[in-house]
Amino acid sequence: MRTGIATVCLSGTLREKMQACAIAGFDGIEIFEQDLVTSPLSPEDVRKMAADLGLTLDLYQPFRDFDSVPEDLLAANLRRAGAKFKLMSRLGLDTILVCSNVATAAIDDDELRASQLARLAALAGDHGMKVAYEALAWGKYVNDYGHAHRLVDMVDHPSLGTCLDSFHILSRDADTAPIEGFDPKKIFFVQVADAPKLSLDVLSWSRHYRVFPGEGQFDLAKFMGHVVRAGYTGPVSLEVFNDVFRQSDVERTAVDAMRSLIWLEEQTAKWLDANPVPAAEGAGRGGSDGSGGATRAAGRRRYPMELATLPQVAEPAGFNFAEVRAADTASLETLLGQLGFAFNGRHRTKNVQLWTMGHARVIINEQPPAADGTAEGASASGTGTVNPGTAIAPAISALGFDVDSPVIAAARAQQLKAPAVPRKSQADEEIFQGFAAPDSTEIFLCQGSPDGTAAWTREFGEGLEVAPAAGATPGHGAVIDHVNLAQPWQHFDEAVLFYTSALALEPQPYAEVASPTGLVRSQVMLTEDRGVRLVLNLAPLLQHSAGPADGTGQRRTYQEHIAFAVDDLVATARAARDRGLDFLRIPANYYEDLDARFGLDPDFLATLRELNLLYDRDADGEFLHFYTATVGSVFFEMVERRGAYDGYGAPNAPVRHAVQYDHLHQLKLTI
Amino acid sequence: MRTGIATVCLSGTLREKMQACAIAGFDGIEIFEQDLVTSPLSPEDVRKMAADLGLTLDLYQPFRDFDSVPEDLLAANLRRAGAKFKLMSRLGLDTILVCSNVATAAIDDDELRASQLARLAALAGDHGMKVAYEALAWGKYVNDYGHAHRLVDMVDHPSLGTCLDSFHILSRDADTAPIEGFDPKKIFFVQVADAPKLSLDVLSWSRHYRVFPGEGQFDLAKFMGHVVRAGYTGPVSLEVFNDVFRQSDVERTAVDAMRSLIWLEEQTAKWLDANPVPAAEGAGRGGSDGSGGATRAAGRRRYPMELATLPQVAEPAGFNFAEVRAADTASLETLLGQLGFAFNGRHRTKNVQLWTMGHARVIINEQPPAADGTAEGASASGTGTVNPGTAIAPAISALGFDVDSPVIAAARAQQLKAPAVPRKSQADEEIFQGFAAPDSTEIFLCQGSPDGTAAWTREFGEGLEVAPAAGATPGHGAVIDHVNLAQPWQHFDEAVLFYTSALALEPQPYAEVASPTGLVRSQVMLTEDRGVRLVLNLAPLLQHSAGPADGTGQRRTYQEHIAFAVDDLVATARAARDRGLDFLRIPANYYEDLDARFGLDPDFLATLRELNLLYDRDADGEFLHFYTATVGSVFFEMVERRGAYDGYGAPNAPVRHAVQYDHLHQLKLTI
Repeated sequence: MRTGIATVCLSGTLREKMQACAIAGFDGIEIFEQDLVTSPLSPEDVRKMAADLGLTLDLYQPFRDFDSVPEDLLAANLRRAGAKFKLMSRLGLDTILVCSNVATAAIDDDELRASQLARLAALAGDHGMKVAYEALAWGKYVNDYGHAHRLVDMVDHPSLGTCLDSFHILSRDADTAPIEGFDPKKIFFVQVADAPKLSLDVLSWSRHYRVFPGEGQFDLAKFMGHVVRAGYTGPVSLEVFNDVFRQSDVERTAVDAMRSLIWLEEQTAKWLDANPVPAAEGAGRGGSDGSGGATRAAGRRRYPMELATLPQVAEPAGFNFAEVRAADTASLETLLGQLGFAFNGRHRTKNVQLWTMGHARVIINEQPPAADGTAEGASASGTGTVNPGTAIAPAISALGFDVDSPVIAAARAQQLKAPAVPRKSQADEEIFQGFAAPDSTEIFLCQGSPDGTAAWTREFGEGLEVAPAAGATPGHGAVIDHVNLAQPWQHFDEAVLFYTSALALEPQPYAEVASPTGLVRSQVMLTEDRGVRLVLNLAPLLQHSAGPADGTGQRRTYQEHIAFAVDDLVATARAARDRGLDFLRIPANYYEDLDARFGLDPDFLATLRELNLLYDRDADGEFLHFYTATVGSVFFEMVERRGAYDGYGAPNAPVRHAVQYDHLHQLKLTI
Repeated sequence: MRTGIATVCLSGTLREKMQACAIAGFDGIEIFEQDLVTSPLSPEDVRKMAADLGLTLDLYQPFRDFDSVPEDLLAANLRRAGAKFKLMSRLGLDTILVCSNVATAAIDDDELRASQLARLAALAGDHGMKVAYEALAWGKYVNDYGHAHRLVDMVDHPSLGTCLDSFHILSRDADTAPIEGFDPKKIFFVQVADAPKLSLDVLSWSRHYRVFPGEGQFDLAKFMGHVVRAGYTGPVSLEVFNDVFRQSDVERTAVDAMRSLIWLEEQTAKWLDANPVPAAEGAGRGGSDGSGGATRAAGRRRYPMELATLPQVAEPAGFNFAEVRAADTASLETLLGQLGFAFNGRHRTKNVQLWTMGHARVIINEQPPAADGTAEGASASGTGTVNPGTAIAPAISALGFDVDSPVIAAARAQQLKAPAVPRKSQADEEIFQGFAAPDSTEIFLCQGSPDGTAAWTREFGEGLEVAPAAGATPGHGAVIDHVNLAQPWQHFDEAVLFYTSALALEPQPYAEVASPTGLVRSQVMLTEDRGVRLVLNLAPLLQHSAGPADGTGQRRTYQEHIAFAVDDLVATARAARDRGLDFLRIPANYYEDLDARFGLDPDFLATLRELNLLYDRDADGEFLHFYTATVGSVFFEMVERRGAYDGYGAPNAPVRHAVQYDHLHQLKLTI
């Protein structure tokens, strides 16, 4: 699949954008007119620079408001087009995107439109140029891709084809199957964009909220499947208008964009495999005209467009461990001990501790990150890629996931442009494959085992995982239930795609939770069997700008946590209380409201109140949980799921945020 | 008018919100349930704290999903309501907001609904409580305020009335005139919110984008006029869900909120004066039932609700001056001299210079801001309220406006809670009334004069304003055309209301302009005769977080400018070029595109290109302009308006942003 991207997706100058696209590995780019107009580079400079960078110039765009106009305006439009064709020659570029008329269309007549497009095609042909005509979703008369294609068919000129833009098609919920009947020679260009489903006027939706494939809710694999079946072989180019991407670091956004196309290519291949064309339909146009689709009846390898594949992985089975880094680990050790975790000793060569409760493993990493950001400051799980100076206060620094084959999963992540973080190990120690997530959390791929144990724990203490006697303590069945990571606002969409593509987690519709400092957007990422639940929190903007920043702008200023599931939360809480745990204290008003809402048994309510437990209930089951105080930016949660309850106690989240805010505020007042 | 605000409008804890409301001068508040539930304050604490702060507790809210349900669910809802009535007793509060059912409504039957509301009213009555029933715009069966009122009429119980929320009414474009026919005794509560017109599903619009009156596009004066005519005398309370306000400084937002109600009160009085009730309608319900509306036929003073008025001012006639502050003024002096400004000397007692061109006056203030932030570091125009350490690089620090009566205008601004900035003056010097805008720019009110001169200029140099001989230089007719100020994103809405209410400028629909670092929102504020044009720019977020911040978080990191209008821009540009002016250099691609778009006369195009001039044209006229290089955060623009052109060359703004970005970037690379 030939990959492309419109320069309008990215921030910076045209020069910066082109360099970033080359680094990210795109085959070609679309030149967005404004980027050229505002650039000091001459068209010849741009042409040379693209060649030097190994980028093809695939499209010049956009040319607006051409068709459906009175004759005098048409003459002016043709003059305007002529000037652009000359410019395109200097750029060494042969295709221009012409959008259906929005502003000046006055005559709704397909015959007239076709005749006007024919004159444009003839002029283009005189210049050796081609016109890709696109139906904008908000075009005055032409706003449907089928309509645009019919006009192209009516004109039937070699210089006129259509451009298929997934946004303009899928934002209207249009059926994409008819694309397969198009003559591939008439599809001059394909632009792809994803988007969240929004009830917004389509123009605003399009201009501000497009995202890269995999970051939104469009069924792009199906769209692309139909395009491939039509026999199209040209570039698949991203055209994504997004307010955040326009501001973000250009090289980083370009890599995020490239990752989305690699993922889309794989998803398209999967869709084609899962949706074989019935034999009767296989004799369609693309298959019969030679230049087009070859035979379609069998597997996807017969289609003219080649689709690269990635190493295939199953979704992870669960969390293998979570790692917290801290300069002073005393408060973490106290909290874990009070929660019922057992100390499993220190690593034999590294300055890290292992704490376990059932199969929930927490590594406390005392090693300061290395000054050069390389492996010397290696943690039990990874390396010191965290910048020096960060993570001095306790913070979540790494997560381990159980996968079938760590090597294959790591190869997949690498092909998806995840930066690798190799683990420095002694000869006889476990080697973890790892990479850095967009928020700089280190992700490690571990070999899962059927009995839930982990071989690497032998490197700690006496070389034995401490297994509490079954039934002896309330936490013997404990596992990591979920991990909640705060995300910098400008990398939130990138993180969603990252965990979707590299780790096979499935994004759920997001929720918004009120806090004293603004709404917190909460995005759950799941595996199908709920073995892994990862929650990405987008904190309010002022949270980010208020906090201290490190050199990379990556520092999270918002609290994160690790939640452990146990079988008997009340017993766990009582034991923790007896050990002196500092619970997050829940206000009395909460329990009054709980009673008003659920009419709970008075004894049960008294227990909840006594132990600072929170409670939720829905049609599927019940949820009990409590939180610890926060150390650094980390706190812990203990949960018990009853029945098939599948949530996270969202109605209780505002209580947690308010109490945590209050503590933080009182802390500030006393300093 | 009794003023109120829902605690949900503000950030922070309940304690912080209540304190901020008291400081801002609100009469009462609505307790948003979640703020109480998440608070460590007991209901009794809240009651006492409100009393101590002089705040009434006017409403408890919201109670959801009560009506239109099957009998078993109704029983549960009544139990839930009973618990809340007991809680309200402890708060010392007698009214609860009940929203029409969204989630659990199952039976669409007004008779049933009325009977259910009657049971709720009876229960409320038993507890000495009242229920204000509100139609949510997205209520399943009840979503129209008239419908809610009909149900209240059907029940006809003293404990049941309606709540009118301007958002739920105006978001549906409902006619508000029928409110006048309502029995005022049945209107238990009025909530006001403004909002920008958005094509968004109404729920998202409501939950994220409400703004305070005067910051959006609703006709709230008309809405309130009908409410007043109905005879309502209760609180007028703000209920504004806004993602930004939820994050912003709570005391500041509370003042912004209070300002909006003061302004709304005045606008309502004006609407009532401008829309007298025809005599025939004056005998309506409110007028006839004694407790209600009194006689309505005549002026508004006859309505039961008292409406306070503000000192009245006409819109300002023009800019009197603009002030730029700088530690090193050399580059500013050079730029102004090259543009054709004359140096009018130094102030007789202060360390400031005056530069003029026609009636365009620029003050260069060399005085460092005082360390204590008070008047000692006084500028020509004002005081040193700018924080020490800011504005070391040249920055726009103050604007003077010509008004009819500076004293009255200042009194008005003060009643609108604008912080005053008195000018320290010697005995014989001009005294300016001034106040600080939300972005900390100092605004001064100056006595305009019919001939366009300014008396205070006598305090400079030889005591004479330098008047260039007419026709001798191209700039003799120059005036300040517009000033462009960058606004911190979290105070943008506040700034719009501030200039609207305190300075009588009219906000125009905003535009968005592309820049290499994101979209820039551009909000024009005008006087009717265009004597004053103020442009507020909301720069992309990363612009703000990337820049250095001062202690107040007020620092602008984005470029701002002052634009001067002249009669002959080409002559002005030639003269400036001959004096060696450093023009913002416009890329050649721009002129090619200009030609493709407009087909300009080749000589004219050559002149534009030669002088780095930009050009725009619309149906009303033409616009020529050029920019200088930037010093500190300030640059200058020269413009010529031909015909009735009323814009600012918006199509050219991306070119300016890109070239400025490129310069900044190259600057960074060479450092």
